[in-house]
Amino acid sequence: MESLRIPILKIGEVLIASIQTTLHDSSAVQFKDDLLQRIFETRARGLIVDLTAVEVVDSFIARLISDIASMAGLMGTRVVITGLQPAVAITLVELGLELPQVLTALNLEKGLAALQRQIEESGDASR
Amino acid sequence: MESLRIPILKIGEVLIASIQTTLHDSSAVQFKDDLLQRIFETRARGLIVDLTAVEVVDSFIARLISDIASMAGLMGTRVVITGLQPAVAITLVELGLELPQVLTALNLEKGLAALQRQIEESGDASR
Repeated sequence: MESLRIPILKIGEVLIASIQTTLHDSSAVQFKDDLLQRIFETRARGLIVDLTAVEVVDSFIARLISDIASMAGLMGTRVVITGLQPAVAITLVELGLELPQVLTALNLEKGLAALQRQIEESGDASR
Repeated sequence: MESLRIPILKIGEVLIASIQTTLHDSSAVQFKDDLLQRIFETRARGLIVDLTAVEVVDSFIARLISDIASMAGLMGTRVVITGLQPAVAITLVELGLELPQVLTALNLEKGLAALQRQIEESGDASR
């Protein structure tokens, strides 16, 4: 069976993953693995997870989003989550996953701008 | 059956579609329709089709890529194709689809830069 892999784009030092399909548990775990591997390979300094097209999440996916943010942060990558819909934000907060270490932005464009600002501010020291 | 839709990202005035899966004929046609619809809805001034992960194309897909470029161009959107692998470039040229109206770039980042330069140069006149 062909797995529904989430494409991961690289623009400069930033990886962008836009979830535009329903994440099943197995594809979500595959996504997490792919993402961490790509961060390691590309030494990306920023990661944007775009959830604009995600209308609802269950507790498994909510936890996974939170895990991805923590893991990528631990690897030294700044994480921005963009396009959270109300229902997704509600689920995350109700589950106590308030992603304190994560930047959020209204859309992909704003997220990219915020991330590039942060990367520039941190300068070359963190390379 | 869940269709394998190619995600289309919007960054500023530019749409980005990164093909990271094998395009079957039906998903390719779906992709073309989605893309033209998104161009119309978002009034995007640029479109990047990233083929980095595409290793080979058959004549149907090659023709479709060429068609997308012509159609998007007709709608007023500048098209950049990035990350053409040798085998794909060979197929396109052998089929006589040399995409004269299309910019190409080595990777997504360079494609985005080229496109934004073109959009800036054309200024607001074409809005």
